[in-house]
Amino acid sequence: MTTHEYYMHKALQEARQAAEEGEIPVGAVVVCKGKIIARAHNETEKLNDVTAHAEMLAITMATSYLGGKYLNECTLYVTMEPCTMCAGALSWAQLGELVTGAPDPHRGYSRLTPPVLHPKTRITSGILTGECSEIVKQFFKAKRS
Amino acid sequence: MTTHEYYMHKALQEARQAAEEGEIPVGAVVVCKGKIIARAHNETEKLNDVTAHAEMLAITMATSYLGGKYLNECTLYVTMEPCTMCAGALSWAQLGELVTGAPDPHRGYSRLTPPVLHPKTRITSGILTGECSEIVKQFFKAKRS
Repeated sequence: MTTHEYYMHKALQEARQAAEEGEIPVGAVVVCKGKIIARAHNETEKLNDVTAHAEMLAITMATSYLGGKYLNECTLYVTMEPCTMCAGALSWAQLGELVTGAPDPHRGYSRLTPPVLHPKTRITSGILTGECSEIVKQFFKAKRS
Repeated sequence: MTTHEYYMHKALQEARQAAEEGEIPVGAVVVCKGKIIARAHNETEKLNDVTAHAEMLAITMATSYLGGKYLNECTLYVTMEPCTMCAGALSWAQLGELVTGAPDPHRGYSRLTPPVLHPKTRITSGILTGECSEIVKQFFKAKRS
């Protein structure tokens, strides 16, 4: 298992937790110098708040842990491609590296021009894509049945 | 004074409060059925959190007040054009109407394609533009001196 896969598994654990709580299953972890400093999952239903995406909560947690506003030395792993809001937040945080699982062709940030992430953010996509997609598909399938 | 100007003055009061606290002076209010249900200003320094923009705080406050996730019957007044993050959040909230003061050619959402706001959000820009711009200019001028 690669390092990226290892941490994406941790983000998937968060996504599973979200599913158990009836939330759209997206999870995120923030890693800084080999240590997980934040882990979060979507809580929009529980908090009744559209801004409570996994990434937003993870950013707030990570910056709180670090005592600074910037995540330029951090990697954020997220099971689904961030939306416009989350990518905008990651840009303000000057994220060092973004690693994503499943793509989001409808809401994902990569549709947008000009590019919305910080120009210095390194990007890796397609880590454990199958698992990251499947958990969301299963969630909606179960909801419809 | 028009209704838009009246509420933009309220948003400007929030921006002034931000300036007094050493924050980039941007303020927002959310109006629903003629009543202000949320008022907020930028708190990124105080909270040490890049996501704590006036609009984000106002969305969370307004949805908390309403007990629902959506702001489709609300108008958000903000002294500066929302950034990518805030526009993404306003889209998730299905905001009814957005009224802005000063434009933000560098960070504003209107640069982006495809459009990031919800397709049903009505948009009015240029309300009290001079005052909304001036307070930000004065803030940075004072910081440099």
